Amino acid sequence: MRLITEVASAAGISEEHLELYGKYKSKLAPTLWDELKHKPDGKLVLVTAVNPTPAGEGKTLTTIGLSQALNAAGVKTVAALREPSLGPCLGMKGGATGGGKAQIVPADEINLHFTGDIHAVTSAHNLLSAMIDNHMFQGNVLGLDPQRIVWKRVMDMNDRSLRSIVTGLGDGNGTVRESGFQITTASEIMAVLCLCDNLADLKLRLGRMLVGYDQLGQPVTAKDLGAVEAMTALLKEAVKPNLVQTLEGTPVIVHGGPFANIAHGCSSVIGTRYALKLGDVVVTEAGFGADLGAEKFMDIKCRQAGLAPSAAVLVVTVKSLKYNGGVRKEELYAGNREALLSGLSNMERHIENLGKFGVPVLVALNHFEGDAPSEIEEVLNACSRLGVPAAVSKVWAEGSAGGLGLAAELKKLLDREDAGGFAPLYEDSLDIPSKINKIVTEIYRGAEVAFSPAAKRSLAIIERLGLQQLQVCMAKTPYSFSDQPRLLGAPEGFTMGVRDITLSLGAGFAVVITGNIVTMPGLPAKPAAEGLSVDEDGVIHGLE
Amino acid sequence: MRLITEVASAAGISEEHLELYGKYKSKLAPTLWDELKHKPDGKLVLVTAVNPTPAGEGKTLTTIGLSQALNAAGVKTVAALREPSLGPCLGMKGGATGGGKAQIVPADEINLHFTGDIHAVTSAHNLLSAMIDNHMFQGNVLGLDPQRIVWKRVMDMNDRSLRSIVTGLGDGNGTVRESGFQITTASEIMAVLCLCDNLADLKLRLGRMLVGYDQLGQPVTAKDLGAVEAMTALLKEAVKPNLVQTLEGTPVIVHGGPFANIAHGCSSVIGTRYALKLGDVVVTEAGFGADLGAEKFMDIKCRQAGLAPSAAVLVVTVKSLKYNGGVRKEELYAGNREALLSGLSNMERHIENLGKFGVPVLVALNHFEGDAPSEIEEVLNACSRLGVPAAVSKVWAEGSAGGLGLAAELKKLLDREDAGGFAPLYEDSLDIPSKINKIVTEIYRGAEVAFSPAAKRSLAIIERLGLQQLQVCMAKTPYSFSDQPRLLGAPEGFTMGVRDITLSLGAGFAVVITGNIVTMPGLPAKPAAEGLSVDEDGVIHGLE
Repeated sequence: MRLITEVASAAGISEEHLELYGKYKSKLAPTLWDELKHKPDGKLVLVTAVNPTPAGEGKTLTTIGLSQALNAAGVKTVAALREPSLGPCLGMKGGATGGGKAQIVPADEINLHFTGDIHAVTSAHNLLSAMIDNHMFQGNVLGLDPQRIVWKRVMDMNDRSLRSIVTGLGDGNGTVRESGFQITTASEIMAVLCLCDNLADLKLRLGRMLVGYDQLGQPVTAKDLGAVEAMTALLKEAVKPNLVQTLEGTPVIVHGGPFANIAHGCSSVIGTRYALKLGDVVVTEAGFGADLGAEKFMDIKCRQAGLAPSAAVLVVTVKSLKYNGGVRKEELYAGNREALLSGLSNMERHIENLGKFGVPVLVALNHFEGDAPSEIEEVLNACSRLGVPAAVSKVWAEGSAGGLGLAAELKKLLDREDAGGFAPLYEDSLDIPSKINKIVTEIYRGAEVAFSPAAKRSLAIIERLGLQQLQVCMAKTPYSFSDQPRLLGAPEGFTMGVRDITLSLGAGFAVVITGNIVTMPGLPAKPAAEGLSVDEDGVIHGLE
Repeated sequence: MRLITEVASAAGISEEHLELYGKYKSKLAPTLWDELKHKPDGKLVLVTAVNPTPAGEGKTLTTIGLSQALNAAGVKTVAALREPSLGPCLGMKGGATGGGKAQIVPADEINLHFTGDIHAVTSAHNLLSAMIDNHMFQGNVLGLDPQRIVWKRVMDMNDRSLRSIVTGLGDGNGTVRESGFQITTASEIMAVLCLCDNLADLKLRLGRMLVGYDQLGQPVTAKDLGAVEAMTALLKEAVKPNLVQTLEGTPVIVHGGPFANIAHGCSSVIGTRYALKLGDVVVTEAGFGADLGAEKFMDIKCRQAGLAPSAAVLVVTVKSLKYNGGVRKEELYAGNREALLSGLSNMERHIENLGKFGVPVLVALNHFEGDAPSEIEEVLNACSRLGVPAAVSKVWAEGSAGGLGLAAELKKLLDREDAGGFAPLYEDSLDIPSKINKIVTEIYRGAEVAFSPAAKRSLAIIERLGLQQLQVCMAKTPYSFSDQPRLLGAPEGFTMGVRDITLSLGAGFAVVITGNIVTMPGLPAKPAAEGLSVDEDGVIHGLE
């Protein structure tokens, strides 16, 4: 690892603008922005993927490896990634810092507390929670309806026992009511932190956040509770982007990590802006597959921030295509041409969809040991038939060397005359049901949308409060275009059920909940935490 | 503010041993210990106080101001303080970084997230909590009794609604059971962090922590649950001491902050050890008044760590003595010679008590504007009659200049031949009831101890499990020597009721609960959070 001061220096950042966290991590001071803001922006490239499968696609890996390869090819490139959440690291998932020769480092510190941003979100969120219950306890001047508090508590831990709880029991402990915890990445504050432009915008957004309704049915916000300034104080460091590096010394901005279902699942706008000033190309990623991640990246993050992505890289693997073609997880290592050809429908659908945003697409075939040459050939041939450039990526095994082909194809794409026609899918002026309908029919290819009674009540509130201009944030299973996780490939004609719609007024979107969305994961029978160890020198093992 | 690299350099710490957190905070790397460990220790001075009153005594202030004054007088001095907890900062208390010209800086960062130590404790604690419930959910191989889980969850927030909750409600969310949250500083992990000597000792202590009992009544520990290594991974940075400075550039180690009732209320052993190598004198403090704070400092921290304090500074104020003499809070500004003379009994008792540990005492009369010269004279005369040195301290108004008299008296005391006769109050070999009895009769001056049925059941468990060698950690109202908060001055002959006894096996003590001890504070009608603001430059106002 190079010292972060050296990485920064190579990226044109002088030490005065660094706020170091140890020797290998740094926050970037607002003074740096003053210096950078007049520079032209680099080109923004989104790494997205087919629908995720149990085999793993390698989006983060590809983002890191591609950035390394671009730098190796002489293109000044910065990666922009999300911060890993502690809960999943200790639960099912392990770390979220790439792998093999395409990793960001120091991986253990990034995976655990990093620079404390997620802890700051937890604190700010739970301060507001405490102030809500305290407000009711101290006389409830605002007339908050304890049955209609929508603001829960958060913890960065996988703890299913906290999903549904009763609080305020015992004498003198406040109002007894049902509530629960979400994982911190599901906090609206995380979405707000990732969408805001600066401290002033952060305050405005925090103030708009809906905490519940009063006994007359009027909305009550964080601003009404007097919590905005204190939350801002808790978040004032977290709003500064973090700089780390890849194993090859490529600068990486790792900042923010909102949930990809009930939030928009992209790293921060502020971090992206810094990256665009520092790199001629910025490679970033979005959560889940392109149906969710890319759509929200384009329709929420890019729209709100006025960003225009120049290209999208769609990560596919032979295994994920076979899985989408109906092969079970256990049999993915065996060749199965028929399933592969069938599963290509999933890739094709995503390619078509990305075209609807006016963004040119490049397919990255993330290579796994055991992929048959004939299978790789089938995927590349399919791309060729679709007129879409593609390249095999071996960044896990080879680092930048394994990504040079991909980097070369991307350079060609970025140099094309027709690059730069980005537009969001829908207009803000459409009403919420029409926005949902447009995403469901044009991206998911469902036939129609069915709103539950609860969703209809929520739509009536949206109508009454005049909130049709909000964007929509779809909370849907990532495994299928539909709301049924087992409907793989490229289904169509289905009915998309909307169970409820909630309001993230600070983030600026209505969350459209389809199916059963879990916002507090549980631990598996053998949590990843049990596999960790710390040696005598304080080095952590078992977390990658 | 000087750069922390400069403060470190002046203290003899080279930059290679620093792990910077921004420009003004640093963790001290274990490599520094390798360099320091063979040096002789400086002298350890405890700042304690009379029983706390609503007027405030100024222990932290005096610790900081005295350190500054000693340095000004040419004595190389380092202060060792506790980390402020976020919850009280945003609730009733405001910041905990001193005041006036005797402050540690950067105050806002120290008061809020600092270097993330308390967040790390929260994470480690709640990981264990999640693993306990997950263990029961996944088949309960250990046979944990859900009714006898003693390990709660924690949050660094004042939130009374979380004191008593029911978790695990809903389908598939685990075992429904009663539980609750404590504030993080009440976590046994905080006590463990503050008493451990190094990573290896940390692991041993974490492993011993009691989480509950199985269905046969046998204790189940964190080690049994396989949580030790992952908790250690989460704590590996938190265990490193933090270096900051006072307004005058005196180096200060701020590390750890356990509750002063259900835990021992002192900053970390590791931090104290570093400080003793860096300073010829180390000034540190303990929570509450000397009956609780000093007793636990001597009997728990110093005993476990093999430290021998050379002197104790007892902070008194004219107002606190009048309050102990029966004057109500609202009338403390008026002169009242009779009440002052009566309240001196409280000071006298604490002086006598400190003598029982073989530690010479110096009285610091913390001066407040409005103190009458005649009142100050009375206090100094009383000290003179008791043969105890005393000095007026004006460090709030004057910084080091206002503490030179106190520093001079302390130097004289430390140079005395008879300094250094420290011994704990009780032997480890006494059984738990005898240890409690000794503290109650010799320190509190109660006539006897009355154990409740619950306490008797706990004593039976202690007997059965062979745990008599534990130290005792008294959880008592800080406002009185007795268990009745309104019994001020120097009461005697009372009966001390013990409500329950809990086991902190990682910390190495049995917690003796007298009266109603709240381990999760609530917010007041107007929380301190509402008074905060952040200006356009990101500077926090309203937190001092």
